[in-house]
Amino acid sequence: MPAMAEMTSDPFPLRLSAAGFLIVDMQNDFVRVGAPLEVPDARATIEPIRRVTRLFRAAKRPVIYTRFVTGPQETLLWTWSPQIRPPVCCCRVGFRRRYDDIQSERECMAVIDELAVEPGDHVIDKYWYGGFFRTNLQDVLFAAGADTVVIAGTVTQICVEETARGAFHHGFKTVVLSDCVSSFAPDLHAAALKNHSMKFGMVLDSRELAKRFGPGSSG
Amino acid sequence: MPAMAEMTSDPFPLRLSAAGFLIVDMQNDFVRVGAPLEVPDARATIEPIRRVTRLFRAAKRPVIYTRFVTGPQETLLWTWSPQIRPPVCCCRVGFRRRYDDIQSERECMAVIDELAVEPGDHVIDKYWYGGFFRTNLQDVLFAAGADTVVIAGTVTQICVEETARGAFHHGFKTVVLSDCVSSFAPDLHAAALKNHSMKFGMVLDSRELAKRFGPGSSG
Amino acid sequence: MPAMAEMTSDPFPLRLSAAGFLIVDMQNDFVRVGAPLEVPDARATIEPIRRVTRLFRAAKRPVIYTRFVTGPQETLLWTWSPQIRPPVCCCRVGFRRRYDDIQSERECMAVIDELAVEPGDHVIDKYWYGGFFRTNLQDVLFAAGADTVVIAGTVTQICVEETARGAFHHGFKTVVLSDCVSSFAPDLHAAALKNHSMKFGMVLDSRELAKRFGPGSSG
Amino acid sequence: MPAMAEMTSDPFPLRLSAAGFLIVDMQNDFVRVGAPLEVPDARATIEPIRRVTRLFRAAKRPVIYTRFVTGPQETLLWTWSPQIRPPVCCCRVGFRRRYDDIQSERECMAVIDELAVEPGDHVIDKYWYGGFFRTNLQDVLFAAGADTVVIAGTVTQICVEETARGAFHHGFKTVVLSDCVSSFAPDLHAAALKNHSMKFGMVLDSRELAKRFGPGSSG
Repeated sequence: MPAMAEMTSDPFPLRLSAAGFLIVDMQNDFVRVGAPLEVPDARATIEPIRRVTRLFRAAKRPVIYTRFVTGPQETLLWTWSPQIRPPVCCCRVGFRRRYDDIQSERECMAVIDELAVEPGDHVIDKYWYGGFFRTNLQDVLFAAGADTVVIAGTVTQICVEETARGAFHHGFKTVVLSDCVSSFAPDLHAAALKNHSMKFGMVLDSRELAKRFGPGSSG
Repeated sequence: MPAMAEMTSDPFPLRLSAAGFLIVDMQNDFVRVGAPLEVPDARATIEPIRRVTRLFRAAKRPVIYTRFVTGPQETLLWTWSPQIRPPVCCCRVGFRRRYDDIQSERECMAVIDELAVEPGDHVIDKYWYGGFFRTNLQDVLFAAGADTVVIAGTVTQICVEETARGAFHHGFKTVVLSDCVSSFAPDLHAAALKNHSMKFGMVLDSRELAKRFGPGSSG
Repeated sequence: MPAMAEMTSDPFPLRLSAAGFLIVDMQNDFVRVGAPLEVPDARATIEPIRRVTRLFRAAKRPVIYTRFVTGPQETLLWTWSPQIRPPVCCCRVGFRRRYDDIQSERECMAVIDELAVEPGDHVIDKYWYGGFFRTNLQDVLFAAGADTVVIAGTVTQICVEETARGAFHHGFKTVVLSDCVSSFAPDLHAAALKNHSMKFGMVLDSRELAKRFGPGSSG
Repeated sequence: MPAMAEMTSDPFPLRLSAAGFLIVDMQNDFVRVGAPLEVPDARATIEPIRRVTRLFRAAKRPVIYTRFVTGPQETLLWTWSPQIRPPVCCCRVGFRRRYDDIQSERECMAVIDELAVEPGDHVIDKYWYGGFFRTNLQDVLFAAGADTVVIAGTVTQICVEETARGAFHHGFKTVVLSDCVSSFAPDLHAAALKNHSMKFGMVLDSRELAKRFGPGSSG
């Protein structure tokens, strides 16, 4: 049956030694409780993202964080995310905010404490949805010998999908991790994953990925 | 009520005099009956696309066609659209094919006869899904004084959506015409339009567009 | 001696079967006698460019023309090439001009008659100096299996150099043909070639290229 | 006389309030005595660059540093700068080197101590010559409301010129500061400045810039 055939073969080989891990926009202003662009479901992805991060770090493969950042000059983005406007100033560089769940203040554009950036990791600041759009992400991956990108983060159908589309357009084999991405709209989340798996790249959950990258793998 | 408020005001002003019309991938290999990448629903969009084309031509505003083209060198695209491989050679430059509905042969990457390119129109050949990805589309629009793009064509959640996302990322106000785009997957078509209207641009049908651009408009 | 060593080995292998030929801006408005952006020395390059073109056509390797084009909307380019402004309208799409040396009228942005575009050739319209800047040139070359670009045309230190720099930045092995490029400023022409050979690619004349691509070559 | 007319009017208005300052590749591996890619003349530009930096900081306008960085994966760049290869590993991320003039060790890709990056400054890491090539530099400038770029750094005809060409291509008014850029080749340095002033942007020295941006200016 076609369905089983699909399950037994990958569209491209997956090798950890040629992969990079991309964590999209897991920033305070998206993930913390009460954040202006809060995606509550993002908090359930923290633990699986941590597991995948450990997998890549153990293999000395690149861990790359994208951050959505905004500046004082208005752009077309403000039309669609009015939280960027003052006084809220979502993801504004240099802007700090108090978050209820951690009872303290953080840089609003910083990656959440739970996914702390470590020395040797890469941080890509982008002013638009796409991680590959006008950034050096393509070259960071090339420099590390990566032709494959594994993608986690939020929001599935916005910045994650845009970044996955960008990865494909730049020639990278792309895997979106279904249990490591999150959205405020379950229908659009599901549609984005389905569409990705049909025309852009693979969709796996983090345990399937670990199996393919595991001790018995060819990676 | 918010829903009504949304209907009575546009997120940005629409002016025909600052707009360009983009017809995405309405090529023989996607639209003709029995074509290898056939999208049957695309044929129902021909008539509304013709009406919008006349509107732009009458106003001497640019009409721009994108064509998805492929070459002999394998790329990652072939994984997701195996019809590109020989012997089918979908959208291959220089390749001709016989189509049953017109009982004759055409260049397989050519725009369908019903939407014939006219002198003064622009044709953008792209090797990927996105009309703005590594093409001069941005400059063609700039040169014509356009800051707004109206988008029609196929497939909604693939090349149309990618092109609409690209338009947004390049700073263009973007309108996707709901009755002028088509897909083989109704659920993904609907999700793409919903997602676009939330974070990227406007979604209108061609009659609403004509009203905004009509005699009593400010365009 | 280093100088001789440099002459006996190439920085990269040259194979005609992996090369494309790029003819930059050999358009009426640059080459014809009395043209508004006339580069008189460009006319001496026509014959060697024809010879190289025959070499590539005989090997069924791509011949690609770039055209510098302008539109009615003012850009920063107009500051540096005031001939683009009306009424001269240099390289304006759709604009025709009479040229004295051929005693007749031509599209001002068209490639000169002597280097006529043939079926199967590619034409890349660009709104800026660089042939790789916001065009599909990279993909046209990829599609033809080319990792090497041989460059001819005008003006050496402007559009030719910009295109050669773009080729390098996009990862292409690049050869500038010293007797097939031309300038209105001999000092800047010489500096551009010297700079290219030090940090960007090879500089050869057309006869040296023919030797490397000839019957006894590995190409 | 035209020559005088040229001297009394600028090709575009210069306003400090719409400008950003770009310091190209003033890194240990280029500037320190005995550095593998040493440009001795770069050291004479440190003092004028510091003066211009103070001017921008005083006006709260952006100060942006580019860094040329390299990774372990070989690219076409290695052909032209063999110092990038191990064991020298020029500008390699994470690589440290001892420099004789400061009698101590530094990150080889770091900006020199004399031009220390301060909080609020921007650092753009690029894997190629051009500061605008696959980086977020364009957006960093947009976000700060800048349409003008003032450029200093090294090497004049390589990374500085490539960045200045990129600025022009992205629509920025561009000023190269003649006494703040440096090269190992005086002839190519001079040619690059001459060429820039003819077809890309302005060339001023730092005192002329200060005058235009000074108390009596319109900036």
